[in-house]
Amino acid sequence: MARPIVTLTTDFGLSDHFTGTMKGVILRLCPSAALVDITHQVRPFEIAEAAFVIGEAYRYFPSRTVHLVVIDPGVGTARRPIVAEAAGQFFVAPDNGVLSMIYEREEHKVRAVTSEKHFLRPVSRTFHGRDIFAPTAALLAKRAPPARFGRLIKDYCRLRFAQPVRTGKNVWQGAVLKTDRFGNLITNLHIAGIPVLETRPFQFLCGRTTLTRLSATFAEGAPGEPLLVVGSSGYLEIVANQASAAEILGCSTGSPVELTIW
Amino acid sequence: MARPIVTLTTDFGLSDHFTGTMKGVILRLCPSAALVDITHQVRPFEIAEAAFVIGEAYRYFPSRTVHLVVIDPGVGTARRPIVAEAAGQFFVAPDNGVLSMIYEREEHKVRAVTSEKHFLRPVSRTFHGRDIFAPTAALLAKRAPPARFGRLIKDYCRLRFAQPVRTGKNVWQGAVLKTDRFGNLITNLHIAGIPVLETRPFQFLCGRTTLTRLSATFAEGAPGEPLLVVGSSGYLEIVANQASAAEILGCSTGSPVELTIW
Amino acid sequence: MARPIVTLTTDFGLSDHFTGTMKGVILRLCPSAALVDITHQVRPFEIAEAAFVIGEAYRYFPSRTVHLVVIDPGVGTARRPIVAEAAGQFFVAPDNGVLSMIYEREEHKVRAVTSEKHFLRPVSRTFHGRDIFAPTAALLAKRAPPARFGRLIKDYCRLRFAQPVRTGKNVWQGAVLKTDRFGNLITNLHIAGIPVLETRPFQFLCGRTTLTRLSATFAEGAPGEPLLVVGSSGYLEIVANQASAAEILGCSTGSPVELTIW
Repeated sequence: MARPIVTLTTDFGLSDHFTGTMKGVILRLCPSAALVDITHQVRPFEIAEAAFVIGEAYRYFPSRTVHLVVIDPGVGTARRPIVAEAAGQFFVAPDNGVLSMIYEREEHKVRAVTSEKHFLRPVSRTFHGRDIFAPTAALLAKRAPPARFGRLIKDYCRLRFAQPVRTGKNVWQGAVLKTDRFGNLITNLHIAGIPVLETRPFQFLCGRTTLTRLSATFAEGAPGEPLLVVGSSGYLEIVANQASAAEILGCSTGSPVELTIW
Repeated sequence: MARPIVTLTTDFGLSDHFTGTMKGVILRLCPSAALVDITHQVRPFEIAEAAFVIGEAYRYFPSRTVHLVVIDPGVGTARRPIVAEAAGQFFVAPDNGVLSMIYEREEHKVRAVTSEKHFLRPVSRTFHGRDIFAPTAALLAKRAPPARFGRLIKDYCRLRFAQPVRTGKNVWQGAVLKTDRFGNLITNLHIAGIPVLETRPFQFLCGRTTLTRLSATFAEGAPGEPLLVVGSSGYLEIVANQASAAEILGCSTGSPVELTIW
Repeated sequence: MARPIVTLTTDFGLSDHFTGTMKGVILRLCPSAALVDITHQVRPFEIAEAAFVIGEAYRYFPSRTVHLVVIDPGVGTARRPIVAEAAGQFFVAPDNGVLSMIYEREEHKVRAVTSEKHFLRPVSRTFHGRDIFAPTAALLAKRAPPARFGRLIKDYCRLRFAQPVRTGKNVWQGAVLKTDRFGNLITNLHIAGIPVLETRPFQFLCGRTTLTRLSATFAEGAPGEPLLVVGSSGYLEIVANQASAAEILGCSTGSPVELTIW
């Protein structure tokens, strides 16, 4: 039987005991688990950012991987813990839309976690990552059937941040989904939705900058020149050769972009 | 036989080769070890902060876990390396008080590491994490008996930072133990020591802010409103709904707090 | 058979999905791999810094460890992916000099990766870490013979940053290789090359500061006093007792240093 894998995506940062504590909880229940950090540096409470990060990473993991996603501004309130199945993998998260990008791409089933037998007691009001989500992930990693945790639901939370708006026959308005470590601006315009971009003249606006051609590599530009590329996930990205496009353009996560195809 | 687990808590940060090097040393001696980072972001030389972090995390790990704690401003001087046993787990650290919170909570035995056979040679004067602490942790993970490393000692270093001072029948003076990633201010006042707080009127001072009721969740407050909650470890915490209490109050680790029960 | 180990050294930071994605790719191909982060905080595109970090860490790992090193400003251009063998271990990296410190210290063989069967398809132009380097590392971890990936080459890129210049019989000009987390300035002057330093009077210049004796530990200095020590890797380091030498001297990575032996 394959070694169980549990990934962790949180906004807990790396300075506190929170992630270590969750890993202890998982290893006590599932000692053979391989633990893989996706990131703990999601900006606090930024559900859309976390949705993008886990939405990019999950598909590269083996089947049966359990993805624990704890960005949870509503901790302690009535928002439900959920277990989702998609693409042969499992996702454990609060029901706040953080799995929306997976819902968009994959057939999926979502369950509300209503069985509480496996929770750590007493359940704190401020750290469900430790008391609810980690033990749920650990049991899934040990091959507990998802139905054990609760019933299928249809009214789970879906957010629409991933979708650009088509405002004219050839005009799309979108936004920067994430600014990565290098200052690349990853937008929510996906090449799969606009394949003509590769053959037709266009104008792409971000901040005060207009780009009119698609580049293949960072190295095509002069140092500091902003370029438009199809990123490694298929999203259009504004990048710069060994420089930060975010700084050069004065843009960041959430900044609007507009594409017009001529 | 269960897979050995070694956790790491340091102030080494994540930009250097230090933590990777220690992990290599451990894996060479104990190839089956599962390595778990608690944090490497303890502020440099802050023994009290590290004591709090490992003090919060250890209890969630399986028995026989080896916790390697290297916050070591005295590296290369006469301070002793120690091996502690507590709660069915092992702790390897310099004898500078960094295990004080575990000593307070658990029955424990402490040994000075005087056997040097397993040290890496030559022992550097500036990186005992690699040459002394990591190989000691690795051998414990391989089930070496603790007595192999040295004799029990009684004069190990204990620090008292964890204790608030009762300055009147109903008055406690404490301090902020740690500011977490979200700006929550975790104090050293533990609900177990002041259970009447849940039923009696009180006044809690931190900076220029006075709080007079206990909240259950972050979400009870208006955005930016400071709240007093019993945190996930039982300590009183000043928090704010999706905001940084540390910024709002202008307080941080070490800031004094005062509780008066009426 | 020993558990395969794959280490990761990148400039990807910890906020994005990049490192998690590479780990997924590795675990899908080699599910038993132990994954160890050396660092992901190399400053963007700083090949010399990455060369130093992996050059310090590799020797502490077990034989057959696979070290994945992805600092890749030339991603998507003609620079070759390479597999190197040295010290009984494997290294997977772009051919941009990032393995230079290993070449200097160890007998080594270098192959250009020309077999592409195992690449992830389509190969993106901007994330070879995921599509080329990670699957190559995973197959090496599964004991694929290095010859499977391509032929031995002699014209691989070697950089000379590691070498100080001897500008007089008793004068060496060097540089700061890395500023570590504590502000210690690690220079490229190695004690093995200047053993007389331990017995003869000397003058060591860095910024406007002159040091004239070798200290054994950080604790020898008054708080804030800069000291010269032989660091844990044998390189001369300027340090300060519980303070940042980098701040005190106003120096950082790349700053020149000069040693004169009298």
